[in-house]
Amino acid sequence: MLAGPLSNRNPGVWKMLTVAVCVALLGYLQAQELQGHVSIILMGATGDLAKKYLWQALFQLYLDEAGKGHSFSFHGAALTAPKQGQELMTKALESLSCPQDMTHSQCVELKGQFLRLSQYRQLKTAEDYRTLSKDIEAQVQREGLREAGRIFYFSVPPFAYADIARNINSSCRPGPGTWLRVVLEKPFGHDHLSAQQLATELGSFFQEEEMYRVDHYLGKQAVAQILPFRDQNRQVLDRLWNRHHVERVEVIMKETVDAEGRTSFYEEYGVIRDTLQNHLTEILTLVAMELPREVNSSEAVLQHKLQAFRALRGLQRGSAVVGQYQTYSGQVRRELQKPDDFHSLTPTFAAVLVHVDNLRWEGVPFILMSGKALDERVGYVRVLFKNRAFCVQGERHGTSEQNPCLPRQVIFYIGHGELGHPAILVSRNLFRPALPTQSWTEVQDRPGLHLFGRPLSEYYAYRPVREQDAYSILLSHIFHRRKESFITTENLLASWVFWTPLLDSLDREVPRIYPGGAENGHLLDFEFSGGQLSFSQQQPEQLVPGPGSAPQPSDFQVLRTTYRESPLVSAWPEELISKLAEDIEATAVQAVRRFGEFHLALSGGSSPRALFQQLATGHYGFPWAHTHLWLVDERCVPLSDPESNFQGLQAHLLQHIRVPYYNIHPMPVHLHQRLCAEEDQGAQTYAREISALVANSSFDLVLLGMGTDGHTASLFPQSPAGLDGEQLVVLTESPLRPHQRMSLSLPLINRAKKVVVLVMGRMKREITMLVSRVGHEPKKWPISGVLPKSGQLVWYMDFEAFLG
Amino acid sequence: MLAGPLSNRNPGVWKMLTVAVCVALLGYLQAQELQGHVSIILMGATGDLAKKYLWQALFQLYLDEAGKGHSFSFHGAALTAPKQGQELMTKALESLSCPQDMTHSQCVELKGQFLRLSQYRQLKTAEDYRTLSKDIEAQVQREGLREAGRIFYFSVPPFAYADIARNINSSCRPGPGTWLRVVLEKPFGHDHLSAQQLATELGSFFQEEEMYRVDHYLGKQAVAQILPFRDQNRQVLDRLWNRHHVERVEVIMKETVDAEGRTSFYEEYGVIRDTLQNHLTEILTLVAMELPREVNSSEAVLQHKLQAFRALRGLQRGSAVVGQYQTYSGQVRRELQKPDDFHSLTPTFAAVLVHVDNLRWEGVPFILMSGKALDERVGYVRVLFKNRAFCVQGERHGTSEQNPCLPRQVIFYIGHGELGHPAILVSRNLFRPALPTQSWTEVQDRPGLHLFGRPLSEYYAYRPVREQDAYSILLSHIFHRRKESFITTENLLASWVFWTPLLDSLDREVPRIYPGGAENGHLLDFEFSGGQLSFSQQQPEQLVPGPGSAPQPSDFQVLRTTYRESPLVSAWPEELISKLAEDIEATAVQAVRRFGEFHLALSGGSSPRALFQQLATGHYGFPWAHTHLWLVDERCVPLSDPESNFQGLQAHLLQHIRVPYYNIHPMPVHLHQRLCAEEDQGAQTYAREISALVANSSFDLVLLGMGTDGHTASLFPQSPAGLDGEQLVVLTESPLRPHQRMSLSLPLINRAKKVVVLVMGRMKREITMLVSRVGHEPKKWPISGVLPKSGQLVWYMDFEAFLG
Repeated sequence: MLAGPLSNRNPGVWKMLTVAVCVALLGYLQAQELQGHVSIILMGATGDLAKKYLWQALFQLYLDEAGKGHSFSFHGAALTAPKQGQELMTKALESLSCPQDMTHSQCVELKGQFLRLSQYRQLKTAEDYRTLSKDIEAQVQREGLREAGRIFYFSVPPFAYADIARNINSSCRPGPGTWLRVVLEKPFGHDHLSAQQLATELGSFFQEEEMYRVDHYLGKQAVAQILPFRDQNRQVLDRLWNRHHVERVEVIMKETVDAEGRTSFYEEYGVIRDTLQNHLTEILTLVAMELPREVNSSEAVLQHKLQAFRALRGLQRGSAVVGQYQTYSGQVRRELQKPDDFHSLTPTFAAVLVHVDNLRWEGVPFILMSGKALDERVGYVRVLFKNRAFCVQGERHGTSEQNPCLPRQVIFYIGHGELGHPAILVSRNLFRPALPTQSWTEVQDRPGLHLFGRPLSEYYAYRPVREQDAYSILLSHIFHRRKESFITTENLLASWVFWTPLLDSLDREVPRIYPGGAENGHLLDFEFSGGQLSFSQQQPEQLVPGPGSAPQPSDFQVLRTTYRESPLVSAWPEELISKLAEDIEATAVQAVRRFGEFHLALSGGSSPRALFQQLATGHYGFPWAHTHLWLVDERCVPLSDPESNFQGLQAHLLQHIRVPYYNIHPMPVHLHQRLCAEEDQGAQTYAREISALVANSSFDLVLLGMGTDGHTASLFPQSPAGLDGEQLVVLTESPLRPHQRMSLSLPLINRAKKVVVLVMGRMKREITMLVSRVGHEPKKWPISGVLPKSGQLVWYMDFEAFLG
Repeated sequence: MLAGPLSNRNPGVWKMLTVAVCVALLGYLQAQELQGHVSIILMGATGDLAKKYLWQALFQLYLDEAGKGHSFSFHGAALTAPKQGQELMTKALESLSCPQDMTHSQCVELKGQFLRLSQYRQLKTAEDYRTLSKDIEAQVQREGLREAGRIFYFSVPPFAYADIARNINSSCRPGPGTWLRVVLEKPFGHDHLSAQQLATELGSFFQEEEMYRVDHYLGKQAVAQILPFRDQNRQVLDRLWNRHHVERVEVIMKETVDAEGRTSFYEEYGVIRDTLQNHLTEILTLVAMELPREVNSSEAVLQHKLQAFRALRGLQRGSAVVGQYQTYSGQVRRELQKPDDFHSLTPTFAAVLVHVDNLRWEGVPFILMSGKALDERVGYVRVLFKNRAFCVQGERHGTSEQNPCLPRQVIFYIGHGELGHPAILVSRNLFRPALPTQSWTEVQDRPGLHLFGRPLSEYYAYRPVREQDAYSILLSHIFHRRKESFITTENLLASWVFWTPLLDSLDREVPRIYPGGAENGHLLDFEFSGGQLSFSQQQPEQLVPGPGSAPQPSDFQVLRTTYRESPLVSAWPEELISKLAEDIEATAVQAVRRFGEFHLALSGGSSPRALFQQLATGHYGFPWAHTHLWLVDERCVPLSDPESNFQGLQAHLLQHIRVPYYNIHPMPVHLHQRLCAEEDQGAQTYAREISALVANSSFDLVLLGMGTDGHTASLFPQSPAGLDGEQLVVLTESPLRPHQRMSLSLPLINRAKKVVVLVMGRMKREITMLVSRVGHEPKKWPISGVLPKSGQLVWYMDFEAFLG
């Protein structure tokens, strides 16, 4: 392994080297006996990925590992017949290149060895796999080796996975005491359901520890360095790597190419599935995860990464903006033979605002952005720190190390762009990073080069001593069983759980059309505010007839009319919630001004949730410090149960505002460690609390909903309690689980100064129609019994509930 | 009043103008009769301020107001004898200047009129004041006028205030149906106490509505425009002017001059009293206050301003950094004949981090900074908005209006600096402001001029059409009774309440010495983090032998030893709290890992407060979601009472973290609308809650303190309950108010897995000594009864408590 044909000129040297080679060879043979033989089977050996990266990576693995105790054989495999396949493979292997520091003759020698160890084989039937297995066993026996294990690399389209997996499992597993590793390439499904199906299927053939799902971004040098960097600079980052110091994190992948020639794939996937769900999300978790003590423990890393996934706040339609380059639909029409009036909705550009809901990252925006046909090809992760310095005498003085007002950032530069190679950049006014000097070296300054708005000289900048291809790195990690560089099933599904709701909600979203390249100008710039992303510029005139246009704000309006002889406010959902929030605030301000306090009784459910969020983020003038919060009804579950109405209130309102603890009045459904027991008198206790604190037991405002069966609060049709009588608070039974409920009674509700009924969604259409026609029949339709004695009743319905 | 001698060349014009003058004159005489005569008495008429600003401002008032219905007389007054005083005053009046748009001859004419209405008068004795009053009455009668009112302008040192005020009140008040206005110049006291004394004294002579305290910064055009600007741009600012959009607010006043020649004043006041307590704080409130609907209502403005004061978070020593220019102490030694080894501690530079604790501004840093001997003379308020845009294709494209990534700011530029005049600047990518076009006009671009890092062309920039001196504006406001431009007594005292604790805590702080001018470089740059300000650079070698040096971080250490045979951790306060917080977090993490929950019982008081703050801001890994918080003891007051231990916990810990509502366990001291009634069984209820939720009633950690009488929790010496026996929770009596308490009992405390006693401050020195020597005598020293049966006891004492 050590060298190619050696120069003959100096016999002394020649002799010495022969000895060295023999010693090495002996060691090698012993080690081989020790570690055993490894067979690597590359499925799809004549495909693009194999030609471009995988054979080269296998050759690199051979160069790195042969001589360290294993023997190897390489099997290119495909469906192609043996002769033709062998030809194609040989052609692919001809272009293998050696490391720069190797002489030509060494290279020729080593390539020769590698080619001798590599052979093509058609793998089609179960029989083919059995034959392969037997051949490997025979070879191992013939050469007096021990088999260590087999690596199957699936460089094939996903529809072929199941068949191959079944064949490997049934006919090509190595014997006992050896290992099997299968390497899978994306796509791993199209959404959560399909990913789960695929995972289940694969899981029926392979153990979790046998599967290596590749995301080749995890093999990119700058990405692979994120965790080691965080570990080696742990002491200084411990203080900085959190919401108190980080302003934002950007995970960016920009491409100049478009999807031409690949639209059959792209049309089905789009940019979010193609790059955000996998590459960018993986990078995000490496930045955001808690750093395990043992950064070399695969198990610890994977576990912490999974926790990071679990902390991601759910995405909503407003979390993203999407775009499509102008010529995309035309390309699709041409390539997929679509009719002339076909307009694709597939995004080729997307930016997504992600929040990590834990104490470390709460409130820090993580921006994921990727797109085709942009002005530049570049990928990076940028951690921008908060600027909390004040420079008394401006920026004119001193060096950049001294100037605390210059931007402070840490950048993992994945590659391309103006720099042209992977790099790690740390602002000089932040800290001098520690990096392993054998593999990373300082970048020479390049005058005039600005990165992220600052000259290169303002950074401590490092590049890899030797640039390595991602697949070489990953193959080495597979060989060394470093599972933390791969996507586990749990990790994959967690990622799809995160992305699928957004993908669903964007399904019919019309992307903004952009011209492509430098011409995009500021057209795709976006801003975030209150958890929402939006383009900075108004939608301009469409450059070409676009695929339709989304409703404009001016299309919305608030309609005022009456319903059941009371005022009705109707609008699109967003407008409706805004209006209601405003009205509640006005009522609150007035109550506090007049009485010094405001007693608000709230219902649970999903419609109020949007209201809570609106109140939490948009209303600075709300007199929370003087507001008492009461519950309209509660499910008989512990307060901490996700089903509890109080829990919803806590998550969407309470934790964002400052209501004094003692102004919060959850219903006492959980007393003496049991739920809604009559003898614990929870309803009576709540009634007494109301009587004691609320003047005349008359709430300032009660917010109700309406069920599809006409129930309101937790007062259901035919309820034996709460529809009339003296009781202020009652225990009731719901037809739905959990059955037991506590509720304000109709007589108490009707004492309120103001009652608001919020009804939203198409599901409510029928009951809305029906209730508009019935009289006062609370036994049949409890909602029809809501009629404040001396207060005001107002209905708030969105257009879907009201107009259908 | 209307014009000087007119040109004679055109008889037609002459005639027309004569008619016009006569008509005007007639109107004028009628109006004078209508509105009456105003006497303005300028005390200190020959002083610096009078010469430099006040006479000119009076002349301007005359130009503006004469002809609109009042007649005037101006009385320069001082202690100087009449003849000499008149000479000095005449000299001062000679330099009066007219507005630019007035011809020379008009100017001569008008100055002549003004001089005829002005006379000098010695005011020394009560008799002098009586004479003045009589003279005014006589003049009014003589000229057939009605007296409207008198304005006394105190341009005298504050020690003279009381005498003058007494004389005016007793001998120079105008008659019934007329008004009196007295105008006072700062300083208005030296701290809260002296300001209050001065206010009480003045209050014995004048009504609140008679007093006009001048802060001349409120008359600076850019400052006076803040509220009108907010009002006129209300619609767009409503959305932006809050914590969601504002990154920070800077209120800055930089001077190039030093205090030479004024050290006798300066040495007593320093930069905080000289500029921050008044000018910068006033500006801050104009930015931060809620905008009243009626921005022209003095009452509403003053009321809202006062509310802003009340929302200011208390300052602590760490809220400020202070500096002193290098030659200051030498100047003081020379001017005040101090010995050679005298070093002043008076700051000539200060930066203060202010937080406004309301929903609008929570978390937004307001930076107040002022200093002498800096590189530039300039004053401004800068509202910097959050940058929440992402520019997909960099900053190279498009105009500044389009670019959402450029800084967004609103600046009220008070004057001087590179611009050289007052201005209002709004970034073009923010919004186009509305300004009154008759008084504000767009600034012409000046190529090459950069302000706040950006070219002037990136701002909508406006300057006053006519620059006006602050005193002219304020005199006009006094005349028109616009009290919102002045400092009310309430406002003044609120400001001192805010500043005095910081001034006290800085009393012995050694300022950083700076060379002065451009040489300061980055030496004074500062940063803020977690409510604290600190210089960005480490203290360099003193440039000259400084006035001493503060202890360095390296001087601190954590000492480990034993106390009462249990482990003792001792350190300086900050280190101690840090260490304790770390230890508690470690205990919590371990408990949650093992049992899934962590039960923490906390004491009230001031030492835990620092701990709470540390836990709230520095510990991301703390498993709050799984932590239950219990109280060690409570005062029998409502939970919302400022005296309640729970209230302290709420303010300093709960509102910063996310503990689920149902994991918070306040003591039930307030049941059935009464406090700690035996028959309400609050103690028993709490004991039951503990038994139900805490396994074996054994808390994971109990945090205790120790009183100077040896009490712990609310278990006082000789307490009949809680020191032994079966009860877990008891009602006790404190020797201090409020007497009634609820407390965990010693037996319950001693069941804990870990008990921590935190003892801090010099006050605890004696009891610490004593308790170190006593045995197990809980009746005498309840703290000596703390001895966990199977748990661990650890003492945390700071060096002051432990070493004295």
